[in-house]
Amino acid sequence: MFTTADVCVVGSGSGGKMLAQQLARAGRRVVLVERGLVGGFCPYLACVPSKSLLLSAAAGLSWPAARAVRDEATGGRDDSAAAAELAADGVVLVRGTARVEGRGVLVEGEGGPQEVRAGTVVLATGSTPVRPDLPVDLPTWTSEEALAADELPAHLAVVGGGAVACELAQAFAGLGSRVTVLVRGEHLLSREPAWVGDRLAEVLRADGVDVRTSASLEVLADLDVDRVLLATGRAPATAGLGLDEGWLTDAGAVRTDARCRVVDASGAVVEGFSAVGDVTGISPYTHTANHQARTVVSELLGRGRDADYRAIPRAVYTHPPVFCTGDTTGGDGVRRAWFDVTEVERANLLALSAPREQRRTLTGGVELFARDGVLVGAACLGPEADSWGAELSLAVRARLDVDLLAHHVRAFPTWSEAVYPALEELRG
Amino acid sequence: MFTTADVCVVGSGSGGKMLAQQLARAGRRVVLVERGLVGGFCPYLACVPSKSLLLSAAAGLSWPAARAVRDEATGGRDDSAAAAELAADGVVLVRGTARVEGRGVLVEGEGGPQEVRAGTVVLATGSTPVRPDLPVDLPTWTSEEALAADELPAHLAVVGGGAVACELAQAFAGLGSRVTVLVRGEHLLSREPAWVGDRLAEVLRADGVDVRTSASLEVLADLDVDRVLLATGRAPATAGLGLDEGWLTDAGAVRTDARCRVVDASGAVVEGFSAVGDVTGISPYTHTANHQARTVVSELLGRGRDADYRAIPRAVYTHPPVFCTGDTTGGDGVRRAWFDVTEVERANLLALSAPREQRRTLTGGVELFARDGVLVGAACLGPEADSWGAELSLAVRARLDVDLLAHHVRAFPTWSEAVYPALEELRG
Repeated sequence: MFTTADVCVVGSGSGGKMLAQQLARAGRRVVLVERGLVGGFCPYLACVPSKSLLLSAAAGLSWPAARAVRDEATGGRDDSAAAAELAADGVVLVRGTARVEGRGVLVEGEGGPQEVRAGTVVLATGSTPVRPDLPVDLPTWTSEEALAADELPAHLAVVGGGAVACELAQAFAGLGSRVTVLVRGEHLLSREPAWVGDRLAEVLRADGVDVRTSASLEVLADLDVDRVLLATGRAPATAGLGLDEGWLTDAGAVRTDARCRVVDASGAVVEGFSAVGDVTGISPYTHTANHQARTVVSELLGRGRDADYRAIPRAVYTHPPVFCTGDTTGGDGVRRAWFDVTEVERANLLALSAPREQRRTLTGGVELFARDGVLVGAACLGPEADSWGAELSLAVRARLDVDLLAHHVRAFPTWSEAVYPALEELRG
Repeated sequence: MFTTADVCVVGSGSGGKMLAQQLARAGRRVVLVERGLVGGFCPYLACVPSKSLLLSAAAGLSWPAARAVRDEATGGRDDSAAAAELAADGVVLVRGTARVEGRGVLVEGEGGPQEVRAGTVVLATGSTPVRPDLPVDLPTWTSEEALAADELPAHLAVVGGGAVACELAQAFAGLGSRVTVLVRGEHLLSREPAWVGDRLAEVLRADGVDVRTSASLEVLADLDVDRVLLATGRAPATAGLGLDEGWLTDAGAVRTDARCRVVDASGAVVEGFSAVGDVTGISPYTHTANHQARTVVSELLGRGRDADYRAIPRAVYTHPPVFCTGDTTGGDGVRRAWFDVTEVERANLLALSAPREQRRTLTGGVELFARDGVLVGAACLGPEADSWGAELSLAVRARLDVDLLAHHVRAFPTWSEAVYPALEELRG
């Protein structure tokens, strides 16, 4: 039994689903293969329940109430609405496990094997959590398991210091767990400027989280924890896909070019294959997958445009949130300038009238990075940083110069005003 | 008795004060003349107490608590701290009323008349409220009087439908007054797209405010009001300044060129005179005054750059806030596209977990305006719109094209995502 299609998408996460729907709406015959939930992790087991729990914790909800809200936000992890959206757009959904065979895909599903022959195969299989070995035998959660949990642990140990670790630490602490975070390195969010993770650690500590940096996992033996949340990263999901070894990087990600076409080790395009999302190893965000999906759609519809990864936001939805974009490493020839977000008038006003429980989120900073007078990166922490940081991300993407940014008018009294002193310092 | 200076600034509001300090720090001898409070209206009687009362109302504070917070935010309307800042930067403060005489200024103050001879006189005298005639004899407030009030009116009538009227209506309603808003036209915020004012009217009505559009002031006779707040606009403050009639527009504002130099009716520069802030009649915002101040500083320090008024934010700090920028009138050749902010994932998440009193602020929209494929304006209403709108304001300022904006990556799940569907519509 075989099906033919213009495009066969393997994996229905955010990027794969968006791409399938947009191409189907444009008249292409699209088959979408999914072995799990239609929609992937994001709406059921990642971004959505994570943000839901954080918002509920900030709103002071109890665990049962927060769990109910989470289950409503995730549709009870029922993917029929997502499947119906695909059907409405004319996407053919095939449930099963895909394996690349020649220019097509072989799907093993409940109805037996099915071959899909397609002009283009788009790999969108996402990622799977990395599970480190623990020195102690304790019940563990991946982030997906944590975000589908019915029980609130009395004492949760979070292993890792990235975005997922920070978000879930704050959420579970706010909802009533005792939380200990164990980070191998010296700082949370180790890829960002040190002050970002250090200030966020202060916020988490004020929330009652025991944040331990430079920590060994041996300490788990001494902590009376009920559950260990493994938030130690994710790896591209390519196992069993039958991909040519030459298509994969050393880290196991599918190699892609600027149009998201699969390329081999020599950089040559592999005709008929594209890839989007976590499986490309480029940046593990829903919005990156969506950007790549739009890039593939443009390419297949004949108005191609390169993907642009220079200004991919790296947001952490803690309270206050973190928003970083572009190059925040500060290499040779990069000037950097920092300003305290709490010194702007908006912060003064809020400090005076905000309820006490909001005041501990009144912290933050903004650091700007410029090379040759052009903004190349920004690191932001503070109230609404995921909103006002967007201006800086656009500035990095559009390669705007610091002079123009310094001369631009920002409203008084907004959080955005915090960038002025940093811009002046970069100019001076 | 006379003083000489490089620069004599008349009026110490936001623009005048910033300019005086920056020039003094750059080594210029600066005299600043002020007849009232150093710092002008903004920190004592306008922006700052207004935002303070709005934040206090949103936080559920009582009137006495909100009043105490307001008085702390405004420093009890004591300007000694502002005067000390000037002194620290070496600005010479002269208290009194100024009148232009030739290339200098004559100040009448407590210590008798004083002449200031300066290379450049900067007019920064601000604006004064317009007081319409009322058909009924009732106690009135200007916005300054409302923002310094000790008593909460039982029933406050607000005359006007602009930013100040909307902000104070929501603040006083939230703090316990019965509030009736009387607007002559069909919409609040009449210079913005109609949907903005209409949605904001819905929000205010949900707050208990009786918003009456197309209203005649005759109705005041039938309303049992204690106080009428006159929020019917402001006029440039030039009375008694001794300015040449030819320097003033028909609306009474001081004419300026792109470098904020005073010009006469023929457009010729009046040597030795500049003007910033409300007195220029360009846009009545603190951030416009600051932008003009920076422009004058650049000009006087020999690295002049034109002021740019294309992307001045027009913010209203209600809950939710309004943020408009650029050209939102939609003339010939302008394409426009609207999207409902409550359809983004962030809104869905918040709707499920937000406390009931926050949910009525979960409304809004974003409308984008483009000409020849370039963004020229944006109107935003919604949670954090004064933060995420900043991206759009920068896009208008930098003349970014809609294609680039549509291809740019915005973080999931943020409010910023609301612009994608509007951008797609503008491209299509």
